[in-house]
Amino acid sequence: MQTLVKVVVDAMGGDNAPAEVVKGAVDAVNARKDIKVILTGQKPLVERELQKYTFPKEQVELVHASEVIEMAEPPVNAVRTKRDSSLVVGMNLVRRGEADALVSAGSTGAVLVGGQVLVGRLKGVERPPLAPLIPTKNGVSLLVDCGANVDARPSHLLQFAKMGSIYMEHVVGIKNPRVGIVNIGAEEEKGNALVKETFPLLKECGDINFIGSVEARDIPSGVCDVIVCEAFVGNVILKLYEGVASTLIGKVKEGLMSDLRSKVGALLIKPALKTTLKSFDSSKYGGAPLLGLKGLVVKTHGSSKAGEIKNSIIQCVQFKQQEINEKIKERI
Amino acid sequence: MQTLVKVVVDAMGGDNAPAEVVKGAVDAVNARKDIKVILTGQKPLVERELQKYTFPKEQVELVHASEVIEMAEPPVNAVRTKRDSSLVVGMNLVRRGEADALVSAGSTGAVLVGGQVLVGRLKGVERPPLAPLIPTKNGVSLLVDCGANVDARPSHLLQFAKMGSIYMEHVVGIKNPRVGIVNIGAEEEKGNALVKETFPLLKECGDINFIGSVEARDIPSGVCDVIVCEAFVGNVILKLYEGVASTLIGKVKEGLMSDLRSKVGALLIKPALKTTLKSFDSSKYGGAPLLGLKGLVVKTHGSSKAGEIKNSIIQCVQFKQQEINEKIKERI
Repeated sequence: MQTLVKVVVDAMGGDNAPAEVVKGAVDAVNARKDIKVILTGQKPLVERELQKYTFPKEQVELVHASEVIEMAEPPVNAVRTKRDSSLVVGMNLVRRGEADALVSAGSTGAVLVGGQVLVGRLKGVERPPLAPLIPTKNGVSLLVDCGANVDARPSHLLQFAKMGSIYMEHVVGIKNPRVGIVNIGAEEEKGNALVKETFPLLKECGDINFIGSVEARDIPSGVCDVIVCEAFVGNVILKLYEGVASTLIGKVKEGLMSDLRSKVGALLIKPALKTTLKSFDSSKYGGAPLLGLKGLVVKTHGSSKAGEIKNSIIQCVQFKQQEINEKIKERI
Repeated sequence: MQTLVKVVVDAMGGDNAPAEVVKGAVDAVNARKDIKVILTGQKPLVERELQKYTFPKEQVELVHASEVIEMAEPPVNAVRTKRDSSLVVGMNLVRRGEADALVSAGSTGAVLVGGQVLVGRLKGVERPPLAPLIPTKNGVSLLVDCGANVDARPSHLLQFAKMGSIYMEHVVGIKNPRVGIVNIGAEEEKGNALVKETFPLLKECGDINFIGSVEARDIPSGVCDVIVCEAFVGNVILKLYEGVASTLIGKVKEGLMSDLRSKVGALLIKPALKTTLKSFDSSKYGGAPLLGLKGLVVKTHGSSKAGEIKNSIIQCVQFKQQEINEKIKERI
């Protein structure tokens, strides 16, 4: 018999909690026998949602947590004071080894703080990065770090490259993933102080497939699989990706509605366009893992619907079964 | 009689030089009586291009320069050793006051180095930033700095904000332009060390209309007019803008060609879509000024066609007539 992977799901986190979160959890256990979901949150609210669905009861557990961490709360304070929040209760389950992983669509800051403070780092890991997958022309790339550690040092970036490579190879399934460092030019002598110091470390590292500097312009075309950068730059890349895409799609739609001829054309192209744009979407891979923790913490979009929650839960199974943390411990 | 504004145009710079550059220069003098263009470059090549057009001879001068700085040359070395290149000869004309401004589509690095070393900084300006206009939902925003100075200090960013505001108000015509600093969250306590130190300086500065932190996600919707950031981040923003837009447009086109129904629809929407996407393009405003120099240096895209060269030349007239450098000297 396969071992069950136990995934805590923060039932109160995110804009669509608890309804979409609970639905995602139910969909996950209905899809796979090897998952046990532990929902943390306010019992009456979560139970009311659970009652809407049919699912194998033994695969879902509910742990009551009376408090909720709001999106706008200062993270450190929230994690410290709201000891009975759905997030903190969930993190503690992972810390005590009663669960393998946690998925939350709640406050990014609180997830990052909780991951480091409550779950804790693997031995040897200096800074655990947040590593979302971003869509590219023909697939996805992993962006590390993307918000966990501002003002990082070269040794941190080297660890990001190693952990990112392990994740892409064993969770996403890209053999010998290409690692690039975000830079303002392709030449080795270009860059700011951090990049110039990090470049030789990456170049000398035998564990990774380093291909050199990557300009931001080339990221969307999928020029590498693991994109290494410090958190401020990573955050700008992630957010600008969303911003440019949504403004541009808005512009296209505006053009389609500008006259009758275009409106007729719009009706004809709608199905194909929808399929195409869907392929430029990374949510089917799940959320962003916080790498290098004792256990796995996955942050999904605040606006996650059931589908993304379900995919994030399944991602945890892959992470556990592929023994990613063991691989990280060996290679860090 | 109006005073002539003298603009040096680097006839050998860029992917489409000298043909498109010379055409742009001719178009500029045919459009306006108040411009004199000084073309620098290899005389036989430039003359051959000039012979194709009719234009007022007294508005165009040709200054021979035997050398050309290639795109891939190390900038500092190129500017130092190629004393008779079209760029260096042009920069020296500005330095000696024989011209008011210079436009080049050549190597960005060489233009930045030449601007600082040959043309020189205005008194009080610590670092001259490169400040391109980027398209937004309903207009443009100025991105300062975008590649000139990596590892900047808070005092530099304060000057970028001041110079950028003057430029947006008097060249682009935005009254009381809103200034934002790129950050990884909207709250004042967020950010890396540089942003945290710069924030209070911007907040206390009476000369600018500071609106606080701006997340990269909101840049494309035009949330502020002057976007302040250090050069590495600015470069990532500029390049990623281009990368995401081109990948996404490629995806849309791919969708339009996927079946017969969509192909018919594509024919119908083509004109409207073209107009819409054209509105998401900032080249009509000219190139990116290097602010804070004794004289004006404008860098246009390496791939510039005649239209962008022409617009960049006209932008120099506006810059001169609005006495931007005098305003910068007063307020820095």
